[in-house]
Amino acid sequence: MTTSTPPIVSTIAGSDSSGGAGIQADLKTFAALNCYGTSIITALTAQNTTGVQDVSPVSPEFVKKQIESVLSDIQVSVFKTGMLHDAAVIHEVASTLKSFYNSRNDTVPPLIVDPVCVSTSGHTLLQEDAVQTLIDELFPLATLITPNKAEADLLLSKARGHDRYKISTIIDSQAVAMDLGRSFGSTNVLIKGGHISATVRELERFKELIVKGNFQKRINVEWDAIPGQNMEILRRNEIDLDDELVVDVLYEAQSNLTTLFARPRIHTTSTHGTGCTLSAAIACYIAQGFTMLESVRLAIAYTQTGIENAFPLGHGHGPLNHLHSVQQRQVPLPTSSNPYPFTKALIASHADLWKEYVEHSFVRQVGEGTLREECFVHFIKQDYHYLKYYARAYGLLVAKSHSFDAIQTATQTILNILNEVKMHKSFCEEWGISNEQLETAPESPATMAYGSYLLNVGLQGDGAKLLVALAACLLGYGEVGLWLISEASKGKDAWVKMEGNKYRKWIEDYGGESYQSAVKTGIDILETIAREDPPSQKRFDEWKEVWGMCTKLERNFWDMALELS
Amino acid sequence: MTTSTPPIVSTIAGSDSSGGAGIQADLKTFAALNCYGTSIITALTAQNTTGVQDVSPVSPEFVKKQIESVLSDIQVSVFKTGMLHDAAVIHEVASTLKSFYNSRNDTVPPLIVDPVCVSTSGHTLLQEDAVQTLIDELFPLATLITPNKAEADLLLSKARGHDRYKISTIIDSQAVAMDLGRSFGSTNVLIKGGHISATVRELERFKELIVKGNFQKRINVEWDAIPGQNMEILRRNEIDLDDELVVDVLYEAQSNLTTLFARPRIHTTSTHGTGCTLSAAIACYIAQGFTMLESVRLAIAYTQTGIENAFPLGHGHGPLNHLHSVQQRQVPLPTSSNPYPFTKALIASHADLWKEYVEHSFVRQVGEGTLREECFVHFIKQDYHYLKYYARAYGLLVAKSHSFDAIQTATQTILNILNEVKMHKSFCEEWGISNEQLETAPESPATMAYGSYLLNVGLQGDGAKLLVALAACLLGYGEVGLWLISEASKGKDAWVKMEGNKYRKWIEDYGGESYQSAVKTGIDILETIAREDPPSQKRFDEWKEVWGMCTKLERNFWDMALELS
Repeated sequence: MTTSTPPIVSTIAGSDSSGGAGIQADLKTFAALNCYGTSIITALTAQNTTGVQDVSPVSPEFVKKQIESVLSDIQVSVFKTGMLHDAAVIHEVASTLKSFYNSRNDTVPPLIVDPVCVSTSGHTLLQEDAVQTLIDELFPLATLITPNKAEADLLLSKARGHDRYKISTIIDSQAVAMDLGRSFGSTNVLIKGGHISATVRELERFKELIVKGNFQKRINVEWDAIPGQNMEILRRNEIDLDDELVVDVLYEAQSNLTTLFARPRIHTTSTHGTGCTLSAAIACYIAQGFTMLESVRLAIAYTQTGIENAFPLGHGHGPLNHLHSVQQRQVPLPTSSNPYPFTKALIASHADLWKEYVEHSFVRQVGEGTLREECFVHFIKQDYHYLKYYARAYGLLVAKSHSFDAIQTATQTILNILNEVKMHKSFCEEWGISNEQLETAPESPATMAYGSYLLNVGLQGDGAKLLVALAACLLGYGEVGLWLISEASKGKDAWVKMEGNKYRKWIEDYGGESYQSAVKTGIDILETIAREDPPSQKRFDEWKEVWGMCTKLERNFWDMALELS
Repeated sequence: MTTSTPPIVSTIAGSDSSGGAGIQADLKTFAALNCYGTSIITALTAQNTTGVQDVSPVSPEFVKKQIESVLSDIQVSVFKTGMLHDAAVIHEVASTLKSFYNSRNDTVPPLIVDPVCVSTSGHTLLQEDAVQTLIDELFPLATLITPNKAEADLLLSKARGHDRYKISTIIDSQAVAMDLGRSFGSTNVLIKGGHISATVRELERFKELIVKGNFQKRINVEWDAIPGQNMEILRRNEIDLDDELVVDVLYEAQSNLTTLFARPRIHTTSTHGTGCTLSAAIACYIAQGFTMLESVRLAIAYTQTGIENAFPLGHGHGPLNHLHSVQQRQVPLPTSSNPYPFTKALIASHADLWKEYVEHSFVRQVGEGTLREECFVHFIKQDYHYLKYYARAYGLLVAKSHSFDAIQTATQTILNILNEVKMHKSFCEEWGISNEQLETAPESPATMAYGSYLLNVGLQGDGAKLLVALAACLLGYGEVGLWLISEASKGKDAWVKMEGNKYRKWIEDYGGESYQSAVKTGIDILETIAREDPPSQKRFDEWKEVWGMCTKLERNFWDMALELS
């Protein structure tokens, strides 16, 4: 198993010491969306949720050096830029990217430009004279630019040469997105709606205008995060015409298509770094092969979920929750030095019980050869009953299987059990116990409890859970066999005696190759489950509980044999 | 549901443009271990997997400003430092932390100092005269220092005033860890074993020395990532005395306890940023409340798993895989604007089939009142058979339940079904169909297929999967009811007619409050499953497959009614 390299995304932006915006938000987003992140820092900020306290610029030369270090070694799939600070840095970023790829007869990979000019808290993040450089040098390389209202207004004034127009409605957003897209050399434009007021009424009016003007083929409205078609049952609250919305507007230059993404406006202060996060998420989805439209749609949903699942942090505008899209793995990934993490975790979860089971007095006395015969006979009789449950549980496992491979393995186990039963019978004959005595021996409560528990688990849960239940017996006897054999091999002072031990065959059976190979198969099956169907915490807790119960029932089984109960 | 704030960890370190070391490795580690990361940048590097191409320092004043921005707003649980570049920065870091917490009559939170001096590629990352400042000013604040061999040698020479001693074996590591811990004001010391040679033979010899010297209470050896006690079955390869090991040595000053963490040496080039990652992971585990010993143990395992699951990246020493400890969430977390993400995802996974089902011609003709009576009668007869399967499947669900609440809900559904059956009977009487005719009507293959499939899913899987199978019927009829009622309400031109429609009662039943309330309960149960037991991709794919099959069987059921088949 080698791990494949995830898509590589690179951010060229400022650093936010408080971790909610800038390259920190970008790196968290890349991590949350399973991309490998690299970062070129263009400026440092001393910043927190209440605002930007100070900015320390990075020289254009050092920005260039960082880009060159990354590009010369790592194949970046998608770039995004954030805060670029000044014209010199913008010029350096654009020319370094261009010259690197030109020199390789290659085109610059997709580039998402978040034209960060002013922070939410009002701090200037791009010097004013730099806007023209952004337009002239970076936009021609951009796949998408993602201005908010203020930035779109500024860009529009640059494009028009005056600032008589400003966005105030979603109708303006749509017109300006298209205008900017056409002005700046056919680039895609996403105008973020966070600072543009919109209501359901206005959106409905806009939709009427679309129909009246016969623009249906050019303008789409998506009510994202609102139930889709044929999902009336998911709509719980009536929609009021005065409800406020956030509407992001995407203009795609090539197809001349505009898409409005509408969703309820959430009243929250957790908006620090929203713009950085959105453009970083778009970059990730583009890197994963989604189209521009799909990427924007998915990135908006990712960002919105992050805002709505934000936790309290700081005294101002807190960050969103970037990591809502991942959950902690309960079982570590296997490695060459730790190839059985799941089995190890099960055993470790009830280490004391497991030790009581596999190093039970019964086992020790078997090893020494001192076990009273009647205890062993009682054990064999009860094991005979137990194996019937065990075989039936494997029958249930067959019925729960999804593949012929799984059916084959479970069936082979049943055949092995039937074989074990035959051995029990012939062994009993040797010890003078008739078949009939074996068959009619009363079943102990401990036997019944264990057997019934297996069938209960098999009825209640799925195949994975049943396999965990069945493993405690399979693996435990394997551990006992290996332990006794290894102790016996310690020379003449070893406490385990093989010579003259009447239980020698029993020890050799469980420590022997055939049984141990079944144990190995069992372990491999467990590990495959945990790797291919990694459990949630709840599911893993249930598995550990089942494992612990079976370990205890095994221990009780040997207690029962010693007590002849 | 509000999300609680995760532990907040802050790194004070350099930036690595290539994303594998420095604050980038730290932030990825914090994300992977579910901590919120903030970062104070002390220097920028132009760096990739082949080495450090250039370093650009950050002024001590700006380092101070970043720390103050973070501390004044955010409550940091644990700090870690990495590359600090020069004496002035070290001084500023130490004095800013001290004065901030002193001014609040508080102590500095736990601080892990990774005394980064030289990069793996040989680049000086700390100016030589700065080492004494590190020792004098930062170590007194440190909970743990984590030198590698070269750094430990350097620190030892500073502590001794000469450099006649250097670490070459694990015996040296143990002695030096203790020596450094005692020299630097009783701090904990972790000497990383990456550059110290060790074999199984040497470790075994060391263990003998421990016993001979009677040091068992002071020195522990942990064979981490090697099967533990009673785990002989997990040991697949024989251990050779010449096998190479990596042995990290932790000295805990307060308890005077030394722990050696031994594991097989992995031959890999994916070691870029290993030291940063290890100290970042220790910081996370400390922040989560683990003891120093547990934190170091867990962090070593996290780092080792990251190295062994690394992917190819760059031409030199690639980064480790930081995100091995998380997996992508398949169902987004619910939010107030998207409260039913699981149900929405199920419906969206087979949107076309679902539309064919809930907007079926049968449904349209019911709405118009134009459906041929014989079709409806056929439908009712088959539905009568189907409801028997449906009730039995809920019986299976009762048997699979884990709580009385779940048993109660499933049982109530069976009672609702029995009630529906009664309604069917009285309805049939109105239409002149006797009880006997209903009971003896031959069962259609479509009915049998659907009913049997439900029981099959119930036998094969767990309760969650069965609930998904049962939901397609429950939710689909709810959607049909709401749709017809909503279409009927569109005034005199509406295509759904209620006046004089012989199927009016049927429409009103499924669109009515009582049935819709059952639908809401069903949706809530589904969402609870996805939230409390978030599925792996495999499990989610299985659920979507079951959902799709049931949607298709529902559509086929209405086909059957129209075709009288």
